[in-house]
Amino acid sequence: MPATSLDAVVSLCKRRGFLFPGSDLYGGLQGTYDYGPLGVELKNNLKRAWWRANVYERDDMEGLDAAILMNKLVWRYSGHEETFVDLMVDCRACKSRWRADHVAGGKCERCGSADLTEPRPFNLMFRTQVGPVADEESFAYLRPETAQGIFINFKSVVDSTGRRLPFGIAQIGKAFRNEITPRNFIFRVREFEQMEIEYFVLPGEDERWHTRWVEDRLAWWVSVGLSPDNLRLYHVPADELAHYSKATVDLMYKYPIGWEEIEGIANRTDFDLGAHSRGQGELGLHARVAPNEHSTAKLTIPHPDTQKPVVPFVIEPSAGVDRGVLALLCEAYDEETLPSGETRTVLRLKPAMAPIKAAVVPLKRNAPEIVETCKAVKRDLQRTGEMRVVYEDTGNIGKAYRRHDEAGTPYCITVDFQTLSDDTVTIRDRDSMRQIRLPISEVYDYLRRGIAGQLAEDAFEEPWTE
Amino acid sequence: MPATSLDAVVSLCKRRGFLFPGSDLYGGLQGTYDYGPLGVELKNNLKRAWWRANVYERDDMEGLDAAILMNKLVWRYSGHEETFVDLMVDCRACKSRWRADHVAGGKCERCGSADLTEPRPFNLMFRTQVGPVADEESFAYLRPETAQGIFINFKSVVDSTGRRLPFGIAQIGKAFRNEITPRNFIFRVREFEQMEIEYFVLPGEDERWHTRWVEDRLAWWVSVGLSPDNLRLYHVPADELAHYSKATVDLMYKYPIGWEEIEGIANRTDFDLGAHSRGQGELGLHARVAPNEHSTAKLTIPHPDTQKPVVPFVIEPSAGVDRGVLALLCEAYDEETLPSGETRTVLRLKPAMAPIKAAVVPLKRNAPEIVETCKAVKRDLQRTGEMRVVYEDTGNIGKAYRRHDEAGTPYCITVDFQTLSDDTVTIRDRDSMRQIRLPISEVYDYLRRGIAGQLAEDAFEEPWTE
Repeated sequence: MPATSLDAVVSLCKRRGFLFPGSDLYGGLQGTYDYGPLGVELKNNLKRAWWRANVYERDDMEGLDAAILMNKLVWRYSGHEETFVDLMVDCRACKSRWRADHVAGGKCERCGSADLTEPRPFNLMFRTQVGPVADEESFAYLRPETAQGIFINFKSVVDSTGRRLPFGIAQIGKAFRNEITPRNFIFRVREFEQMEIEYFVLPGEDERWHTRWVEDRLAWWVSVGLSPDNLRLYHVPADELAHYSKATVDLMYKYPIGWEEIEGIANRTDFDLGAHSRGQGELGLHARVAPNEHSTAKLTIPHPDTQKPVVPFVIEPSAGVDRGVLALLCEAYDEETLPSGETRTVLRLKPAMAPIKAAVVPLKRNAPEIVETCKAVKRDLQRTGEMRVVYEDTGNIGKAYRRHDEAGTPYCITVDFQTLSDDTVTIRDRDSMRQIRLPISEVYDYLRRGIAGQLAEDAFEEPWTE
Repeated sequence: MPATSLDAVVSLCKRRGFLFPGSDLYGGLQGTYDYGPLGVELKNNLKRAWWRANVYERDDMEGLDAAILMNKLVWRYSGHEETFVDLMVDCRACKSRWRADHVAGGKCERCGSADLTEPRPFNLMFRTQVGPVADEESFAYLRPETAQGIFINFKSVVDSTGRRLPFGIAQIGKAFRNEITPRNFIFRVREFEQMEIEYFVLPGEDERWHTRWVEDRLAWWVSVGLSPDNLRLYHVPADELAHYSKATVDLMYKYPIGWEEIEGIANRTDFDLGAHSRGQGELGLHARVAPNEHSTAKLTIPHPDTQKPVVPFVIEPSAGVDRGVLALLCEAYDEETLPSGETRTVLRLKPAMAPIKAAVVPLKRNAPEIVETCKAVKRDLQRTGEMRVVYEDTGNIGKAYRRHDEAGTPYCITVDFQTLSDDTVTIRDRDSMRQIRLPISEVYDYLRRGIAGQLAEDAFEEPWTE
């Protein structure tokens, strides 16, 4: 049963080292989180699975990693300078500032005064001074989304790869938004990570590709461990669409805080490439864009049939890495009552997503031969470089199992006295708590199959009472 | 022969899609670069090799991924607010600003005026406003190094993992410095990436560990492809040491611009953990630190023998990701004259570092059966998820080979008419341009061994004249 409260997940995350509040040592910095030893592995596993599915296993995708600091003109022509705003009101009595839609009662939430200013736009982009001279011109924004880094590199990518339509560019990276009220753990934060694809297609083929990408992305989230029952589509109504969008489908996940967006898949038409092009008048754009006086290139590509320059339409599947991590954690979180009456907390992550693939545990911590064998087993497994394996001796064996239940470690390998005579170990399965005894020489292959999801349901034969 | 000029490397990088100047479409943003389709793979390969060697293959390391935005108190107590500065002078005549050591002649480099201000400190940290209220208190810095994210999480990591001395914390991430004069391509930029380890040891064991880390890190750079002849150690003289350092050894690489630092390995003593601790008076610190009035914790760990709290010494191997990428590119770059008199540009990257592991090339682009077989071979290889494989049909076969010589692709797999009758393909070796003919069913294993560096020197038997 997935987590029913966010608090339980937050608590586990801190206790086991998935996530710590940012700058905690100094009282924190609101809206930032640090990924701990387990969190960084989980996040990397998710990002790698995305890259593998979308870049390596497709025939039509290039990767990119653009800078976070970008020329401010990018954000003028993308529309962010003008439209990426929240309306704010100030309380003249206590000098506090509020989002206009949060003081709907017309009174300050802090002091109760009704002496509020008119709503004024507040831009959510972080701004910083670049270069030694502090003047009104020398600033840049931290990107509020990774997408624009793809659009402005469109021509460079086409020129260097020779790509033709349809094709996409994939990017994973940090983005920053000065959210007024960060909340819900890592769901709404000021510093976050995105996995974004901009997929370029011929105008007219956009709706078909949009549908296909929605299906692909939904299937991918299921493949990394989210239950189809906890995912649903939200077709954004026409009057709620962003100015650049012809149609948007949000993938919603059932978090403990309710159904919330984990990924959005938008049909952005030719708005973006058109907005960033020079000579827009000659491009026959479908979207309405502001005149661009600074761009140095036309962002076109030859039509596959006519070879005439065309501005592609763009389908954008845009996923939140942190929201993905949170969904995996919520989905995997489980508390179960054992026959002994004890409550077991276990993180039922798919083995491929698990931060640690195996823990090697000595039956006795003070038996030198057992400890030595443990370390040899660990070293042989980690030498493959494919997985994080740890030597676990921080408690007795029961505590070691519980610790790794909470870490989501799918397999515990225990070295006992029998190991010393016959070179076999037990492998304990996290989910069923069953065990199997295997020669050490077969452990690697067994784990490899387990991580790839190729073990049969009955692979663990010996019931075990913990 | 490695590159003798940076220009040749820069030109290749843009042409083939390794690196593009940041925000190029809008005239650029000085000191930023975007990693293109090949660059992002090369960088990821380097980062993964580092993570694998330092986190997966060791017994004594935890990973971390801390936020870029951090509470400003971190940078007060780290010493950065006070000391992370360049001295600047302003020209009163033309209002330009210069690093003091760049106008040693006492005259403005732009207008020649001698009417310069006294040198004034200029902090290299980027600053930004956080939260809706713009006042003097609500700002944060973009981290100028990843190291401090490790120090301030020291206690959280120890508490959640149960680590004892000696152990380390490894982190890869972006950092930002408002360099006055970014230069030399990706060598000195304003936005860059670091791979840093903070390794915690008992005081007294620090010098031994320092020596050992210098050896380890040197060996690692060789393992990813740098020639030992192009690497040397620079023992930083006592009078040049940073205030926190007891000893620093820089690993220098012979770039086309000269010998420059690719990694620094510093013995930081107990300066950092001491500086960020509360109750410093009780800690018996070796380093001189400023009194800390804000920290919420003592950054100690039990002494392995006495169990008394001790502030560990820190050894810090700190490497630049971008400098690493640049070194790999310079090392691998080669121009050779073929028997035909033609010049071949080839990037002799180690196969494990190469962005694309194999290109599948049709002998004829308009032979449907050949094209279909190519795509089947590609799909089978990429299904393993282990490597980037591409279908290459952007030119004739000679051009395809040259293109992948420049991309550093170690293997080109060519499907020809013989393939259609006997299911064999040729594999062409990038470095020797020799070929071997193999059944399709053996290709994966052959590539896998090649990437792991397990192929014999004479694996390619058939000489080939291109």
